[in-house]
Amino acid sequence: MKIAIAGAGAMGSRFGVKLQAAGNDVTLIDNWTDHVAAINANGLIVTRDDGKDQVYPMTALAPNDVTTTFDLVILFTKTMQMDQMLTDLHDVLANHPAVLTLANGIGNVETIEKHVPRSQIVVGTTVWSSGLVGPGHIKVTGTGSISLQAVAPASFSNLGDIISTLNAAGLKASPADDVMAAIWKKAGLNSVLNTYCTLLDCNIGEFGALPNWRELNDAVLDEFQAVAAAAKITFSASAVTTLIAAQFSPETNGGHYPSMHQDMANHRPTEIDFLNGYVARLGKQLGVPAPHNAILAQLIHSQEALVTAKD
Amino acid sequence: MKIAIAGAGAMGSRFGVKLQAAGNDVTLIDNWTDHVAAINANGLIVTRDDGKDQVYPMTALAPNDVTTTFDLVILFTKTMQMDQMLTDLHDVLANHPAVLTLANGIGNVETIEKHVPRSQIVVGTTVWSSGLVGPGHIKVTGTGSISLQAVAPASFSNLGDIISTLNAAGLKASPADDVMAAIWKKAGLNSVLNTYCTLLDCNIGEFGALPNWRELNDAVLDEFQAVAAAAKITFSASAVTTLIAAQFSPETNGGHYPSMHQDMANHRPTEIDFLNGYVARLGKQLGVPAPHNAILAQLIHSQEALVTAKD
Repeated sequence: MKIAIAGAGAMGSRFGVKLQAAGNDVTLIDNWTDHVAAINANGLIVTRDDGKDQVYPMTALAPNDVTTTFDLVILFTKTMQMDQMLTDLHDVLANHPAVLTLANGIGNVETIEKHVPRSQIVVGTTVWSSGLVGPGHIKVTGTGSISLQAVAPASFSNLGDIISTLNAAGLKASPADDVMAAIWKKAGLNSVLNTYCTLLDCNIGEFGALPNWRELNDAVLDEFQAVAAAAKITFSASAVTTLIAAQFSPETNGGHYPSMHQDMANHRPTEIDFLNGYVARLGKQLGVPAPHNAILAQLIHSQEALVTAKD
Repeated sequence: MKIAIAGAGAMGSRFGVKLQAAGNDVTLIDNWTDHVAAINANGLIVTRDDGKDQVYPMTALAPNDVTTTFDLVILFTKTMQMDQMLTDLHDVLANHPAVLTLANGIGNVETIEKHVPRSQIVVGTTVWSSGLVGPGHIKVTGTGSISLQAVAPASFSNLGDIISTLNAAGLKASPADDVMAAIWKKAGLNSVLNTYCTLLDCNIGEFGALPNWRELNDAVLDEFQAVAAAAKITFSASAVTTLIAAQFSPETNGGHYPSMHQDMANHRPTEIDFLNGYVARLGKQLGVPAPHNAILAQLIHSQEALVTAKD
């Protein structure tokens, strides 16, 4: 299969390597010029679980330099860079590739729909992970899986081909029954742990040790549930709360600072508008107020402005 | 007049010195044993605007050691210590002194009413300020004024005497027409500046420079206005917003960190339950939801728990 990885950071690069090793024709597409140059000059360096480096010759391009067509575009940009990436790939998308997103955050389908017909969009969640060491260099740990679904299943015929291709590359893909429920579940978890750990500058275990973590948790998730119900999406605040509580122990994720905390510490924009901020906006549209999520999104934006002001 | 200053920290001590210098019989009452011992041993040291120290012999007592009676008790405890102080002064209060509070925060009258008949309570606001240097030592800057009102004016005959006594001591007191409006105005200001500067770890100027300070401001004050209306208290969100915006410049309070920020930095409990937290509780009682204020109070409590956990 001819595959583009649009957004070839840590995760996109890991997927690209595995798909190319399985015999696909893979192009990495990214805006980071040092990263693109390093991959083309030296190949992609992958530091594995055992600490050993392996080098994979790969093709990398800036979005505006892409001229070929693809069967499948896998979007791995950050959610807030997705719209710009899709704009840059306008000509590529005119050739009707399937477009798969596994990005965190809600609202990605709405963004993609502005550029691609619903009938070509596949959406999913993944628990694969990966870290970026530097330009042209990633570090991978553990394994993962993918759960995915066509946005318009009746008009999308080749989901089986995509799943087979991903599985041939060892990516452990399976069809989802209700991928929107899975996306909202993950977004609910992130809208509690990412948001509060960032705002309060604490790790997941410290959040879980707060006497009032349930009040904070419920303030977010009760509104998620009400907005999801209005949007006809399955969401259980109590199920997500159980999942969150399972992260607190040092044996799971207690010592971990969520990715948003890392983004804030590194003065990068956060994904807040596709987590709490998205639910606040959707709630407003649907007449279901989500004031807690709205002010949490505002507070994270304030924090972003304050760290940037110190740059 | 025989006057007790209940809570003889920076402000209480400044008032005590001025009232005693004007010929009143003043007793400082405080729970901080080092402070009480230092005042009794060495007098109260006052560092003035010009940098010079002056020493005033004063009488200081722990609450449980007070046996005399008073014409006037001026409450200068922190709001969250007020209930305990009034409990400790039970016998003193049985002799029906007038009780004056000038403390920040809303809900003080409710606290005092648990211990003192409404007909004896006087409530006010002040812009006098003072700083604590150490046990038995304060630092005073600038001047101020007091605006005050009996809670039950029809049954309180000697407000004029109290005002005369305060004015004879140079404290610039005048009767207020609507002291509850003044208290809510100050609480509105503090519920924006104290709360956000603490939560976001910024000074007043940095808060004012946030692109979304108005969203944050309005989230708090629109709820204040709705709850105040239900409680039949005069409150104008736009007037308080104007007052807040006037604090941003370096010439006013821009470089200043509000007192709650100092409390948090010093791992002391904050007054949040008598600011945003009070409005959230009162709103709930009156059927006027105040979700923004509620979650802001929760977040400050989380921050208190996190700084205390690091002690």
